[in-house]
This record gives sequence, C-alpha cells and structure tokens, in this order.
Amino acid sequence: MDVLLTVKMDDSLRKPLIEQFPTVRFFFDDIESEKLEEAEVIVTYGNDLTQSLIERAKKLKWIMVASAGVENIPASIVLERDILVTNAQGIHRAPMSETIVGYIIAISRSLPTIERNSARKIWDQSVRSTEVEGQTILLLGPGTIGQEVAKRLKPFGVKLIGMNRSGRHVPLMDETITYDELLETVPKADVVLSILPSTEETRRLWKKEHFEAMKETALFCNFGRGDFVAERDIVDALQRKLVKAVVLDVFENEPLPEDSLLWDFDNCYITPHISSESDGYMPRTLDIFRPNLTAWLNGDPLSKFTNVVDMKKGY
Amino acid sequence: MDVLLTVKMDDSLRKPLIEQFPTVRFFFDDIESEKLEEAEVIVTYGNDLTQSLIERAKKLKWIMVASAGVENIPASIVLERDILVTNAQGIHRAPMSETIVGYIIAISRSLPTIERNSARKIWDQSVRSTEVEGQTILLLGPGTIGQEVAKRLKPFGVKLIGMNRSGRHVPLMDETITYDELLETVPKADVVLSILPSTEETRRLWKKEHFEAMKETALFCNFGRGDFVAERDIVDALQRKLVKAVVLDVFENEPLPEDSLLWDFDNCYITPHISSESDGYMPRTLDIFRPNLTAWLNGDPLSKFTNVVDMKKGY
Repeated sequence: MDVLLTVKMDDSLRKPLIEQFPTVRFFFDDIESEKLEEAEVIVTYGNDLTQSLIERAKKLKWIMVASAGVENIPASIVLERDILVTNAQGIHRAPMSETIVGYIIAISRSLPTIERNSARKIWDQSVRSTEVEGQTILLLGPGTIGQEVAKRLKPFGVKLIGMNRSGRHVPLMDETITYDELLETVPKADVVLSILPSTEETRRLWKKEHFEAMKETALFCNFGRGDFVAERDIVDALQRKLVKAVVLDVFENEPLPEDSLLWDFDNCYITPHISSESDGYMPRTLDIFRPNLTAWLNGDPLSKFTNVVDMKKGY
Repeated sequence: MDVLLTVKMDDSLRKPLIEQFPTVRFFFDDIESEKLEEAEVIVTYGNDLTQSLIERAKKLKWIMVASAGVENIPASIVLERDILVTNAQGIHRAPMSETIVGYIIAISRSLPTIERNSARKIWDQSVRSTEVEGQTILLLGPGTIGQEVAKRLKPFGVKLIGMNRSGRHVPLMDETITYDELLETVPKADVVLSILPSTEETRRLWKKEHFEAMKETALFCNFGRGDFVAERDIVDALQRKLVKAVVLDVFENEPLPEDSLLWDFDNCYITPHISSESDGYMPRTLDIFRPNLTAWLNGDPLSKFTNVVDMKKGY
C-alpha cells in the first residue's frame, strides 16, 4: 500500500515511521508527484489538494490533514467517493494558545515597543503600558483551543466571556453569550479574540459595526479563519483608530499580498499563519496518524479511528 | 506639615490627595527643591536621595519609596536619624509578573522574530519556534513576585524549581533548592529567572560558570537587581552563544550606557527597568501611602503602618 506525504518531515521522523510499518511504501514528495495515482493515503497540510488532483488520485481512500481546518479540501468529490478524512485537531493546543496569550500580554505590557527601542539602542523609560489583570476577554469560539487559552489566562485575573450557538455555559467562562448577543457585548471587551472555524455562520460575521462598537483601547485578534472579517474592514478600523491594536494569524488571502494595507500599520501584528507551529508539531501529528494507520491496515471499523472529520459539517 | 513628592503624578491623582488631607501641604517638585529643608515626608522613587541631601532635609522623618527596592537610600544616616522608611512592595505584582511571563512565552514562540518580519512586510512561514509546555523554570527568588509568576506559569504545564536560603518547600514550586545547589541545578533549566533583591548574598552570585552550565537552548532573565551578575559575564555568554537569549530589566549601570555591548546582540532583550510600570502603578502606590499618612497624622505606633522597611536588613 502506498502513502504519499506532502508534509515536511526530517529523517528523524521518517525513519521510525518506515520501520514501524514495513508493509507500507512511504513517498515523501509534493502533490504533483507521479505517486499520486498510486496513493491510497495522502498526508497533507490540506492546502495542496484540488478537485482535479483528487480525480487523478484514483486509488485515494484516506486523506490525513496535518492541520485542524479542512476548508481547503474539496468536499463534494470527497463525499461522493466516500474518502475518509482525518485531521490533527488537538495538536495545536499548547503552541497556539501560548502564542495567543503571549500576544495579549505583549501588547498590554508594550513589549513590541520596548523591543523596537532595544533594537535601536534606545533607553526610554517613558513607554506607557497597561495590565492584563482586570481585562475582559471576549472569546469567540470557546472550544478546544479556547479552553486552553482560558485555562492559561485565568490566573491573570481576567473576566472571560465566551460565545457559542446555544449560549449554554462553557467551562472556565465567567459568562456565555449567543451569536445574537455579540454586538451588544463587544463594548465590554478589552480583547476580542476569534478562534472560530470557517462555517457559513462565521463567514464575515465580524463587520464594520463590530469594530465601531469596540473600545478604542481594545485589542482585536483573529486566530480562527481569515474569512471571519473582510480585510478592508480591518484596514478601515485601523485607519479610523477604532482599536488599539490588531493581531492577525489568518487572512482572506494567504500569503498576505505584499500590497495589502495591513502591513502599513505599526499596531497591526501579522503572524503568517504559524501560531500553531512548533518543534512539537510533526511529532504530535504522527502520534495521531500512527494508530490510525494501524487501524487502517487492520481493516478496523471507523469507530477505531481518532480525529475523523465529518465533511458535511466541515469539522 | 510639608510633604515633598518627587514622583510623577498627574492632576487626577494629585487633587484627591490634596482634598483628603487638608492639613498637609503637598509640594510636587524635584529633590533639589527649596522645599526639601521643610519636608517632614518625602515620596520618591528612591534614586534621587543622597547622604548630603538628607543632611539638608533637617525636618525629614519619613521616606516613602514608590518602589520595592531601597538600595539607593543611604542607610547609615537614615538609621542614625531614625527616619521611617516605607516602600511600595506588592504593587509590582501584576505588571511585573505579566511582563516576565510575556517574555518567556514570546521568546519560546519566536514572537520578536515574527514582529520584526511583520514590520518589514515579510511573510515567512519558516520561522522556527518551541513551546513553553514542558519547560523547566528555575526561579531564583520565589518570594512575592516569584509566587505571582509561578501562579501564572503553572497552567502552561511547566516544572518550577525555586531557590531559597533554607531549601524549604515554597508554595507552587515542584522542587525547592538551596543556594548551594544552584550550580548543579542550572543544567536542568530551560529558563533561569532571577527576581532576587540586592543583598550581600546575591551580589555577583551568578558567574561565568553558571552561564557555562546552562543549556544552549535556555533563556536567561534578570528582573531582580543588576548587581546579581557582571555585565561582562553576560556579554561573554552571548558572544560564546552559551544561551539562546537573554532578557534584562536591570543592569549594573542604569541607564545602560550607550556603548554597552549588550545592545549589540539580537537575542539580548533590553527593557529599561520598567517591567513593573503600568497605568496602575501610581494609583496603587497611593493606596499604600494614604493609610500610612493617616496613621502618621494620628501619631499612630509603627505597627499601624504597612510596608515598613527594616533598613538594617535592606528590605
């Protein structure tokens, strides 16, 4: 059986995999590889698969996406051919929540300004800063990652407001609101943080009026998906100084085009969709993949697999 | 009664103070003010008082230091004249511990590198980073601030090793060592963090051999006092790449001289002794000062005062 892996892995990870599964032929190559036609399994970051490539991959029966989001996987053909899709949800927990908390602290405590001064050999004690303590954090998407963020923020003495469909209480949240209550809640927030996946409900959910409702001293962070808010609305909010700062890990177009106006703002922090990147990323992906591959080779039922994605729902 | 305040306070803080104490004359000026001779109380950051100035301040009976450290207060004349010294210990807890945790996260997650790229409009997904999770933090000085740092770091899944004189267990620490065990413990640490005050015991405690014992991937942070380690030893460690990065909020000479070699290293983060700075700093200092001033005006015994410093011990 052939497995094509288009993800980056160094020898220290390849070797144990090859040794553990002697009956499997592993091909480490890009998606345009001639091995595509033979592959029964593809391991991918999820951004290289198109409808026509899947048409070419006639033997393909399982796509392992080394990422949490599967919105780049062409759903219709996958559903039609009943291709199994699994993902790596869960592995981002530590690194991503660390980066999010890191930015919330850094911007409250003016660390980027201090670093800029440090790089220019400037000793400036007049840099003003505030505190995380006492802030209200509005957490859009209090799911797996949201819980990890909340757990880490809690001892900083913050108030956490979560948002979900039902408004039912979510662990660690001081308060939970529904989607309908979003606009009226925004003015309370010192930090608005989206970790929402891309669904019909969340696409362009955040609009100009939401930025207008924010405190001028508040921070807007998007670590969910780029289609949550139109880029032009973020630019507008920055131009009108509606918010203190913006941190973005996701964008409508990735990589963010060179001529995007977002690059021009000192208070717009752009991280190139690597908030979950870490030395531990690929090892943990393989920790999910290996037991699934064993189950696959054994012909086990679907219930034996972990991280199975429902492509109808998109998560 | 005259009070001379050499600390920075805007009108929003001055007015309520003046209103609360109608019998007190408050003078907001620098230490060279002619009011020095008349002042019974001085409120200072602690870095402007010299022996000769205190000699001039013949009526001086109480120094309120709006800081935690009192090492710049000339101890002999203060003890001789039995001048009361109080400080603002405790007010730094939130901002300082936030900044410390912020740097530990930021450097693990490569946020400064990402920010530098962002400022230069560079989309680079190849930036490598690691995680706070699983790191061992060696906390030198697990006192008030240390406890606050520990409390905030705990949910990140770190191991905390504290160091104190007795080696007796300190809350929140997974392990506590004595000063004698420092050198042998250093190789275990991913982060070495000093928050030690300046005492005879801690002065130049950290030497070349300690840097040499550190992991090459580890972070060294000094948020205690600058005399904990010689500047030339830090420079040496950076030149020899003995550590991954250094974060310094305190220095042998402050402000750090322009020609200091520390400025030259990309991986040496210099914060100009403002880790405890915050919008909330002066309001909280006054929260300590006001009840003490009431006690002073009432002629209350020393036991009614908070934050009294024992100038023999230096804290």
